[in-house]
Amino acid sequence: MSLEIAKPTILLNVDQAKRNIQRMAEKAQRQGIRFRPHFKTHQSAAIGEWFHQAGVTAITVSSLEMAQYFARHGWNDITIAFPANLRQVGVFNKLARSIHLGLLVESIETADYLANQLTAPVDMWVEIDDGTNRSGVRWDRPESILQLITVLQSHSHFRIRGLLTHAGRIYRAGSPAEIKRIYHETVQRMNIVRQFLTGQGFTLEISVGDTPGCTLCADLGPVDEIRPGNFVFYDAMQLAMGVCKPKDIAAIVACPVVAKYPEREEVVIYGGAVHFSKDTVKINEQNVFGLVASVKRDDRNQPGHLWMSVVKGGFVTRLSQEHGVVALPRHVLNHVKVGDLLYVIPAHVCLTVSAMGEYCTMGGEIINTMNKEL
Amino acid sequence: MSLEIAKPTILLNVDQAKRNIQRMAEKAQRQGIRFRPHFKTHQSAAIGEWFHQAGVTAITVSSLEMAQYFARHGWNDITIAFPANLRQVGVFNKLARSIHLGLLVESIETADYLANQLTAPVDMWVEIDDGTNRSGVRWDRPESILQLITVLQSHSHFRIRGLLTHAGRIYRAGSPAEIKRIYHETVQRMNIVRQFLTGQGFTLEISVGDTPGCTLCADLGPVDEIRPGNFVFYDAMQLAMGVCKPKDIAAIVACPVVAKYPEREEVVIYGGAVHFSKDTVKINEQNVFGLVASVKRDDRNQPGHLWMSVVKGGFVTRLSQEHGVVALPRHVLNHVKVGDLLYVIPAHVCLTVSAMGEYCTMGGEIINTMNKEL
Repeated sequence: MSLEIAKPTILLNVDQAKRNIQRMAEKAQRQGIRFRPHFKTHQSAAIGEWFHQAGVTAITVSSLEMAQYFARHGWNDITIAFPANLRQVGVFNKLARSIHLGLLVESIETADYLANQLTAPVDMWVEIDDGTNRSGVRWDRPESILQLITVLQSHSHFRIRGLLTHAGRIYRAGSPAEIKRIYHETVQRMNIVRQFLTGQGFTLEISVGDTPGCTLCADLGPVDEIRPGNFVFYDAMQLAMGVCKPKDIAAIVACPVVAKYPEREEVVIYGGAVHFSKDTVKINEQNVFGLVASVKRDDRNQPGHLWMSVVKGGFVTRLSQEHGVVALPRHVLNHVKVGDLLYVIPAHVCLTVSAMGEYCTMGGEIINTMNKEL
Repeated sequence: MSLEIAKPTILLNVDQAKRNIQRMAEKAQRQGIRFRPHFKTHQSAAIGEWFHQAGVTAITVSSLEMAQYFARHGWNDITIAFPANLRQVGVFNKLARSIHLGLLVESIETADYLANQLTAPVDMWVEIDDGTNRSGVRWDRPESILQLITVLQSHSHFRIRGLLTHAGRIYRAGSPAEIKRIYHETVQRMNIVRQFLTGQGFTLEISVGDTPGCTLCADLGPVDEIRPGNFVFYDAMQLAMGVCKPKDIAAIVACPVVAKYPEREEVVIYGGAVHFSKDTVKINEQNVFGLVASVKRDDRNQPGHLWMSVVKGGFVTRLSQEHGVVALPRHVLNHVKVGDLLYVIPAHVCLTVSAMGEYCTMGGEIINTMNKEL
């Protein structure tokens, strides 16, 4: 396999990705919670099928283009987890005629505009800001939320579904314990809002979900829906946060070594910002773009099984457009030759997948994302 | 025009890009230096034509795929300014049969491997590390360089062209004066190496070139070739370094405003890491992903002319996959509505172009990059 890889290539451990999907699907099912996974991580119809096989029928996406792509591939219950973009209302109308489309609103201006322009019914989720300070109405402004929901109620095209949040602040957590604390705090904040609105006569669902919280919390709490995405592959950020173990990681990037500098204890790989994007993860006070992994196939004990470990002290420390500079401990560096492949666990796999647009399975099969179909 | 833009879109000021090309082409020509512009910035056959009209016949690219793309579009003198990747030697052979292909070597291992595997003649540039510490043989190791060039000389497929460097360290400069100092220092270091090798009987060219140095230095010094790329559009990083003025910037990103938070003095735009990538530029000790611009068309005085200014205090401060969080001063924020377009000068335009894959001219014409052709 490795001999044929000539350029940066995402290697996919299909079995592990399926295990990750199965585990999250079962956790949600056991607790009677709808599993609406976020497909922005894998962006691929073929990988979507694995979710389908695990019983998933409803999905989350991050853009209208992604919703159109998955609708073309047979998905008919899709939430676009991004503040509804008024400039795309024409396409919302087209899509809402053929699938069950969910939109996010967080202002009366947007609600009014959509009320005037939408010609087909859509599911409406009020986006709540749980303290993350990105988008949504602040959870501690119940009167503003009530006002917005009252406007939504007056328009017949809107099916009010509930309250939705993304606890992005969980990525600022310093430990697994803090991740759990933030997850439960967010769920609690959402329930405070729901309780207030129940008192006003509204029946509302709660949709939450991020990979750290949904992975680490055994009890997902009083919510109706979770929307994690990253867990299908995991990455260096999740690893550094203590969310997953190396064995859980299902996507790594194979990069040709093009230069070696023993004095600097560095190699240069073909693999740069156009492949990894430029997200970083902090390891020992240093921001790195990826971790070096050692990969072996275990065909004797478990045919097709991929065995991976993290190379201690192996970091992608700099990225330019096509170059990656990788620090390697001397005992590893000694065995690396120009022309070899180096394996990198990317800092943020969602952006890496989006930048590269395709995967190669351990069996050599190419799997495309939507970026190769547009 | 702006009404039809529904999603993040690179707006191209064609006249300004052509002026930028013309200015650099003339500077090189006046000094008798070959202009081999780096096409990794624009990645577009259509924009390549504008260079052709300015007399350019030789180009630089950053990957073999990019070389193949521009070869398909009629370019026949292409240097791949990246350490030759041994795993792509089969494609080097194909390409070198139809065009004049330039490769970079920086180790004897690579030189030996290519000598055994190449079946067509190629131009060989020895990559020199001018002190940047990315790739190349260190400039202050003349004996290593001599050893490598002696190996190259013994193989008939190699046409030894000269010494090539990319002064990446120029991006660490704190002022225009320091940029000029580093540029001239790099040219001096390259000439020290050349002088040594001339003494050994070699006739070698020197190839340098980056946008900051080539823009700011009136005299490009004793070099044979320059390879800047970014100058075709410029960006926030070049602006912050004092390399260009706002009027020189030829590519900005129009992004729909999807949410507004007066209390936070922020808006959220549709425009995230998958559009801008995640390079940053430091402004007032803060890393930002882009600057906000104000754009007007000046059809009365100069038809089709774009007039742009930087909005003081307007910064893209956070990016997630599709969201951008933008800080705006209150007097600007007051006039921004959800549904408006916000204009962003990206931190690093090369990565933004690579991520987005297409441009829209001020006249509404779509121009594709190679990413839309693969």
